[in-house]
Amino acid sequence: MADLLGSAGEMSELALAQDILDHYASLDDAGKLDFLGHLAHDMNIDPEAVRSALEAYEQAPSKRSYRAFMQAAEPPRQELIRRLNRVPGATGALVGMRADLLRLSGDDPELAALDLDFRHLFASWFNRGFLVLRPISWESPAHILEKITAYEAVHAIQSWDDLRRRLRPRDRRCFAFFHPAMPDEPLIFVEVALTKGIPGSVQALLTENRTTLAPETCDTAVFYSISNCQAGLASVSFGNSLIKQVAADLSAELPGLTRFVTLSPIPLLTTWAKAEGIAMPDDPEARRALAAHYLLHAKERGNAPFDPVARFHLGNGALVHAVHADADASPNGQAQSGGVMVNYLYDLAQVAAHHEDFQTKQKITASSEVTSLAKAGAQAVTAER
Amino acid sequence: MADLLGSAGEMSELALAQDILDHYASLDDAGKLDFLGHLAHDMNIDPEAVRSALEAYEQAPSKRSYRAFMQAAEPPRQELIRRLNRVPGATGALVGMRADLLRLSGDDPELAALDLDFRHLFASWFNRGFLVLRPISWESPAHILEKITAYEAVHAIQSWDDLRRRLRPRDRRCFAFFHPAMPDEPLIFVEVALTKGIPGSVQALLTENRTTLAPETCDTAVFYSISNCQAGLASVSFGNSLIKQVAADLSAELPGLTRFVTLSPIPLLTTWAKAEGIAMPDDPEARRALAAHYLLHAKERGNAPFDPVARFHLGNGALVHAVHADADASPNGQAQSGGVMVNYLYDLAQVAAHHEDFQTKQKITASSEVTSLAKAGAQAVTAER
Amino acid sequence: MADLLGSAGEMSELALAQDILDHYASLDDAGKLDFLGHLAHDMNIDPEAVRSALEAYEQAPSKRSYRAFMQAAEPPRQELIRRLNRVPGATGALVGMRADLLRLSGDDPELAALDLDFRHLFASWFNRGFLVLRPISWESPAHILEKITAYEAVHAIQSWDDLRRRLRPRDRRCFAFFHPAMPDEPLIFVEVALTKGIPGSVQALLTENRTTLAPETCDTAVFYSISNCQAGLASVSFGNSLIKQVAADLSAELPGLTRFVTLSPIPLLTTWAKAEGIAMPDDPEARRALAAHYLLHAKERGNAPFDPVARFHLGNGALVHAVHADADASPNGQAQSGGVMVNYLYDLAQVAAHHEDFQTKQKITASSEVTSLAKAGAQAVTAER
Amino acid sequence: MADLLGSAGEMSELALAQDILDHYASLDDAGKLDFLGHLAHDMNIDPEAVRSALEAYEQAPSKRSYRAFMQAAEPPRQELIRRLNRVPGATGALVGMRADLLRLSGDDPELAALDLDFRHLFASWFNRGFLVLRPISWESPAHILEKITAYEAVHAIQSWDDLRRRLRPRDRRCFAFFHPAMPDEPLIFVEVALTKGIPGSVQALLTENRTTLAPETCDTAVFYSISNCQAGLASVSFGNSLIKQVAADLSAELPGLTRFVTLSPIPLLTTWAKAEGIAMPDDPEARRALAAHYLLHAKERGNAPFDPVARFHLGNGALVHAVHADADASPNGQAQSGGVMVNYLYDLAQVAAHHEDFQTKQKITASSEVTSLAKAGAQAVTAER
Repeated sequence: MADLLGSAGEMSELALAQDILDHYASLDDAGKLDFLGHLAHDMNIDPEAVRSALEAYEQAPSKRSYRAFMQAAEPPRQELIRRLNRVPGATGALVGMRADLLRLSGDDPELAALDLDFRHLFASWFNRGFLVLRPISWESPAHILEKITAYEAVHAIQSWDDLRRRLRPRDRRCFAFFHPAMPDEPLIFVEVALTKGIPGSVQALLTENRTTLAPETCDTAVFYSISNCQAGLASVSFGNSLIKQVAADLSAELPGLTRFVTLSPIPLLTTWAKAEGIAMPDDPEARRALAAHYLLHAKERGNAPFDPVARFHLGNGALVHAVHADADASPNGQAQSGGVMVNYLYDLAQVAAHHEDFQTKQKITASSEVTSLAKAGAQAVTAER
Repeated sequence: MADLLGSAGEMSELALAQDILDHYASLDDAGKLDFLGHLAHDMNIDPEAVRSALEAYEQAPSKRSYRAFMQAAEPPRQELIRRLNRVPGATGALVGMRADLLRLSGDDPELAALDLDFRHLFASWFNRGFLVLRPISWESPAHILEKITAYEAVHAIQSWDDLRRRLRPRDRRCFAFFHPAMPDEPLIFVEVALTKGIPGSVQALLTENRTTLAPETCDTAVFYSISNCQAGLASVSFGNSLIKQVAADLSAELPGLTRFVTLSPIPLLTTWAKAEGIAMPDDPEARRALAAHYLLHAKERGNAPFDPVARFHLGNGALVHAVHADADASPNGQAQSGGVMVNYLYDLAQVAAHHEDFQTKQKITASSEVTSLAKAGAQAVTAER
Repeated sequence: MADLLGSAGEMSELALAQDILDHYASLDDAGKLDFLGHLAHDMNIDPEAVRSALEAYEQAPSKRSYRAFMQAAEPPRQELIRRLNRVPGATGALVGMRADLLRLSGDDPELAALDLDFRHLFASWFNRGFLVLRPISWESPAHILEKITAYEAVHAIQSWDDLRRRLRPRDRRCFAFFHPAMPDEPLIFVEVALTKGIPGSVQALLTENRTTLAPETCDTAVFYSISNCQAGLASVSFGNSLIKQVAADLSAELPGLTRFVTLSPIPLLTTWAKAEGIAMPDDPEARRALAAHYLLHAKERGNAPFDPVARFHLGNGALVHAVHADADASPNGQAQSGGVMVNYLYDLAQVAAHHEDFQTKQKITASSEVTSLAKAGAQAVTAER
Repeated sequence: MADLLGSAGEMSELALAQDILDHYASLDDAGKLDFLGHLAHDMNIDPEAVRSALEAYEQAPSKRSYRAFMQAAEPPRQELIRRLNRVPGATGALVGMRADLLRLSGDDPELAALDLDFRHLFASWFNRGFLVLRPISWESPAHILEKITAYEAVHAIQSWDDLRRRLRPRDRRCFAFFHPAMPDEPLIFVEVALTKGIPGSVQALLTENRTTLAPETCDTAVFYSISNCQAGLASVSFGNSLIKQVAADLSAELPGLTRFVTLSPIPLLTTWAKAEGIAMPDDPEARRALAAHYLLHAKERGNAPFDPVARFHLGNGALVHAVHADADASPNGQAQSGGVMVNYLYDLAQVAAHHEDFQTKQKITASSEVTSLAKAGAQAVTAER
């Protein structure tokens, strides 16, 4: 690999890079871990070199001394990864390499540092300005649809018929971000239902027997499923951009849309309740109240919401709009939250202010109905103890 | 600008980034220099912070301490530039910003350091793997062709008729690299003539009155003009990749092509001769000999070829194949090299080896004919002194 | 040619058709006339065969007797032309063949009958449902733009700069109909200016020094030039569809547009005045009045308007909206109409009713201003006599 | 409907045409039959008018008299159908209308005549020169693939997995003809397997467990399924063109392909044998012999091959290359031909000559092996009687 950073000409460089990628692809997990360990250990920064380059720069700041510092302060593996990326199709392979790294790295601090380098490069390469938003429809290529089915992480797509039901009707939309260097690989996608009023059950949304609505008559866009597709792009965040871009585009196309909400799972409600020693109530209203309390007040260390989906949407500037019992009848929905789901509302005019409040004051905005519900939930919890 | 690095939500972030870009675009040169000076001075690394982060990392290498070092070692302006780039269309604006910087920076070492940051980011964003090779033809969009005409830096395109002569015949080709985020802006392009035999005059190549050849009957592809289009991408090198990609593609399409050569100017021959006190000979053969000597033996400090075009092609692994007198009758051709031009030959099978020789031993490969010619040139120079 | 109608297999059929087309393309005008004469004379209907097939059908109407009649009643050259059309690219060649026919046929009644066959086939092939409307812009392929320049028949495009002025500004549009089998050949195109108010001079529209308007602020779309591109498609009419389609599309895109007008030449005003022994008045108002009178009252036999452009737009359902003196300062404009031009107005809600009035009652609808003007013109004409 | 042929303006004409199509679409079968009956009966030719126009033309052939004859000789319903076709999307609706006609017409001779008019127009509109060949692959739009699945008429596609097996491997291809006015509707498609050697069983071709071959190593292209998609385009023949175009394209792409064969069903073998009082032999060799005899010698009136698939391929100029017992284990294959299948061979160099022999002398070309086999079959048949 050092050769790739050496002086060889471009053609041989490309051939060498291809060889390295091919070699990596042929390795088993133990071999991959060796390879990644080599990057982590042998292509790290040299603190002594950083220190002396820094001092030289401090004493005489110049183009030359700054360049020397830049080179010393960046581990050689970053340049290696950039050179591997010159090969056609390499971007996807490198995303896969990071997926391996995340899967295999365990607690190793050197591998964790390597991961930060990957993430640093990917954040630059997958910059929002480079992403392309594409609608996904029943007219999309089958090999893309096959991946949508495979990557759906919230409400599993059961079959091609199920997929058709989510894509073909005029009141159903789907959008994905793609990167030009990975044209066949969605990075993240969102499924949207256009509705009249805010729905309180995902099974009602996805049922076979429903009447398609004319999009012009709908007032609400429901983001009912958001799935990240690439394990190797973890923590390189697209979801916020995707939701806001899709909301802006739909709003321009269909001026009748006045509300943009999610219909979201509450994945850790049961887990939290168990840890707190609270039994999941049988009464639907009590379940709603408990969920409202949880969403507004359950925190992890650092004062962030305990629930990861809440963390995501509230961090984007959404507010907690409504909570529904008996909203997800699937076994998974029953297990994770007793079937309770939540609508987060994206009020495009307020989203920046809510985000600011959330980031700086940890303030969670909620509708007055949910706020009342959460109070009832808090009292029940106290009473139970 | 600090706000853009702060905690505001994405939508406001995008709006803020757009504001900054709009503001910058409205500035005059003095205002731009102020803006760039602010980036260079106030958003630089803090050596003290780098040093302490480095020490913390050395004492306890961990994900956390490595991340802290990475953040300290990268000047905040890099993250600012990445955030500006999230705005649609920003990539081109940022390339323009660097073009301003190069134009305005003079000898300022802080601005030179800022330029290194731009270049570092651009090298990552304009990685070969992200570029798209597109043929340019008479069927290309007029607004692209208009830019090709404007950017042609070697043999000026005089008119739309001249352009048509270079693009429409079946034995003429043109290829450009584009970046997906700047789809209307060629980055670099090369003009190619398919010929029988190696041509020795650019006017003969570009004449109005010539018979178009059937491409299948041609044995030679002549790269007679290569132009970089974006001042803001200086030193982010594409030419090497472009030539080799085009040679490989043409070779696959037209198996009859056995030679890939340039017909290149010798831009500094006259300059060098003047500095050396050598008069440009009247005799064409003597001019050829002098040029051959110059190409093979005139060096700048560091032992690289004195001629920048030679430096480029030899650095790519090409060899000096032939030298022609009376090859460029244009005033510019007469002034820079007494009308002498040179063919560099890209032998795809040897290009890596030649590159290696050139990089490691400063060895310049030339045909035996040019080598002999250079000897005659050397003798004439000695005799003159 | 009889072979092509014979029993040979498809591949040989295609080869034969290609041979015939190649042969035709190689002929000079005399040869072409021979070829066309052969089609006209030797591949005509056989009246005796038609008569007996008709009688057989009358006596025993059946699938078989009807088919026999159809075959007898259609001249074999129609089937020949359909078979020639199977060759890739043949459609354009056949359109060219008819252009030759129209150019060379003179008064020959057999060639005139052949032309009716071509026209019958072309009306079916170039059915509105098969045409594709494409915007033409400065981003269109150069080879298409070159044809637009060549085909512009109303206000000649002087140069690429002139073309850019008509295509690039946001308040200028151009649209063309294409046929899928002739993707590089526009059939007809219209140039549109978006304006505030109705313009009264074409030079003012086309001047170099004008400020581009924001399309959203415009209230009027001016169809200032409509050009048929294919001589071989004469009398296969597209103009009506084109204007109405473009008006409908622009109306949907820009709801602020409330008027769709032409700025049209009056090509036969001078010719008519001369024939009538009327001198073109020096006074601009008098010229306007004369033109208004001419447009509303000058008729050719059959009671249709004498002016061909008037015939076209009134036949489409437009009305005569306004008449402008000094509207076309070009030599051609001066010669044909003393510089007078006319706006025809397409009121999409009234166009069907006007068309009906025009077709059934020969009624020409005009604004009250033009009607008054025409009265003044009529009085002046009477007075002069 | 007469209105549509009347004088109304184009916009109202389009609206009227749309109304007629919408009205037709809303009818039940009885209503459709009424509608079609009206076209057949009331919009037919008027023999008296044809006769007098013919006489006028005979007495004084001129453009005017020829045009009058053309108009009289063409039933007004043809012009009606052309005008309906101006509406966007009408072409598909009219193809559907003819499908209804074929389904509902029974033995009615007037409806049969109407069908000839439809067919006459469609033969012109769906001229080979207007069709577009598109590869169908796993990257094709899902809504197209769904139609491929629905239209497959030879070897039913069982599921999306089955479809993927036929499209995704590199040694499997599929091509379809489309018309530009019906971009979402395949007209006909062919499925191709690239193989080494000629396969003798369709189940072996379609099995799940097989190794994909590198296309460059294959010597044979097997057209194993050809399906017409549009009932309304019956007798407007595309299959011949499709096979030859695909063979030519594959041949250009993969020079290693030396044989183009079908693997075809023998749909009427059992039917014929029953009618002839011949029992299907148990012995595979005897079944092959019987099938060979049938293919070469069983004729329908007019001396054409009794088997419709044989008629199609032999009419295209193919020859009978080989016959396989136990080649189609499906219930349908067993029922129609006792599992026997046949390879027709398309020898591109001989196809025109074979077609000529077949058309003019009813000569069926077969390999010597099949000829011998047929002799054995003939003897067995004779012996059995």
